[in-house]
Amino acid sequence: MSSSATAPWKQILLNSISSNSHLKHSIYFQLATVGSNGRPSNRTVVFRGFQDGTDKIQINSDSRSRKIEDLKHCPFAEVCWYFTETWEQFRIHGRVDMIDASNSDPDKLRQREVAWFAGSVRSRLQYLGLTPGLPSLDEQPSNDSLDPSAGPVDAFCLLVLDPEKVDYLNLKSNERLAFSTGRSVNVFFVACWKPPTIQNILFGEYW
Amino acid sequence: MSSSATAPWKQILLNSISSNSHLKHSIYFQLATVGSNGRPSNRTVVFRGFQDGTDKIQINSDSRSRKIEDLKHCPFAEVCWYFTETWEQFRIHGRVDMIDASNSDPDKLRQREVAWFAGSVRSRLQYLGLTPGLPSLDEQPSNDSLDPSAGPVDAFCLLVLDPEKVDYLNLKSNERLAFSTGRSVNVFFVACWKPPTIQNILFGEYW
Repeated sequence: MSSSATAPWKQILLNSISSNSHLKHSIYFQLATVGSNGRPSNRTVVFRGFQDGTDKIQINSDSRSRKIEDLKHCPFAEVCWYFTETWEQFRIHGRVDMIDASNSDPDKLRQREVAWFAGSVRSRLQYLGLTPGLPSLDEQPSNDSLDPSAGPVDAFCLLVLDPEKVDYLNLKSNERLAFSTGRSVNVFFVACWKPPTIQNILFGEYW
Repeated sequence: MSSSATAPWKQILLNSISSNSHLKHSIYFQLATVGSNGRPSNRTVVFRGFQDGTDKIQINSDSRSRKIEDLKHCPFAEVCWYFTETWEQFRIHGRVDMIDASNSDPDKLRQREVAWFAGSVRSRLQYLGLTPGLPSLDEQPSNDSLDPSAGPVDAFCLLVLDPEKVDYLNLKSNERLAFSTGRSVNVFFVACWKPPTIQNILFGEYW
């Protein structure tokens, strides 16, 4: 979506984040990708904020992780973000830009650097660890240390999801909103769906 | 996985369900599928228990929903189930069997019937509603009623996920267990991974 216009769903999402902010897990969501074998993958990741001045969603990742492999095969992902306090679900579908050390765009490399320093030093240490996904045979924990002023290490990859479609569901009010954008014209089509016959929409049975 | 042997991850999952059972949302998880366009979909669904005597996971669905279309294209799905109280994540990958009214197997139709009656009458009413995924233009809510003793309606579809791989992560103990099964021999390979160097595995950056 355009960086110059704020998507109508963004304020709804910001409100949900705010209403649930007392819960540690409220910034966790599930990210689905497609592997090179054509099968789905799904894992919990941490919301790292919106890219400045845009509606794009940031996620930190290890370049060696399976999802990077998946995204190289298919650059689309779908977020499913359920807020347990307010009973709201956001499904956010879009293309993911992977910004790693090899990126040639100075602006993107700057974004990656900002994301790196936005994380705690402890969280940065993670990227010095073993190859993710492989069991460790080493009995001794490594004693990696990190200069807090040092920039991103090679394994640090910033993922930036650019939403194309957002499906919002509020299980308390029975409100459902579907947002989509024609990328060339940046027009949002907003459909407010009336509550179904029964008061509670049961999860996942309708869609 | 075989119906005659209990998978080693099942007891861990049952413990997690039990430890989090005071939270309404603890039986919700995210189900990722792949659409006919090759892109991922992701939505929250409700755990409807294990199929009797097996490790297979049951989910109720509307035959008209998007995920049924997805599963006809690619029968594999991945569950991501995060327990917010105990900080545990289960990623469960497997093939999904769709049991709808047209199924020719009497045993499967019986399972579908059992699943139908296991739901509340109110939840069953949902399947009499409008086509899912389409906005309603009708101002009047429909007055569908349902005989509580009536069997499953056409739109009711039981999904049964047969796990092939399970990845368990405990963020409190830093324990990670990977289970997989060779389907022909039904042997589980269990790998207990040592904690990484840092104490907290940050979500989704490693995998």
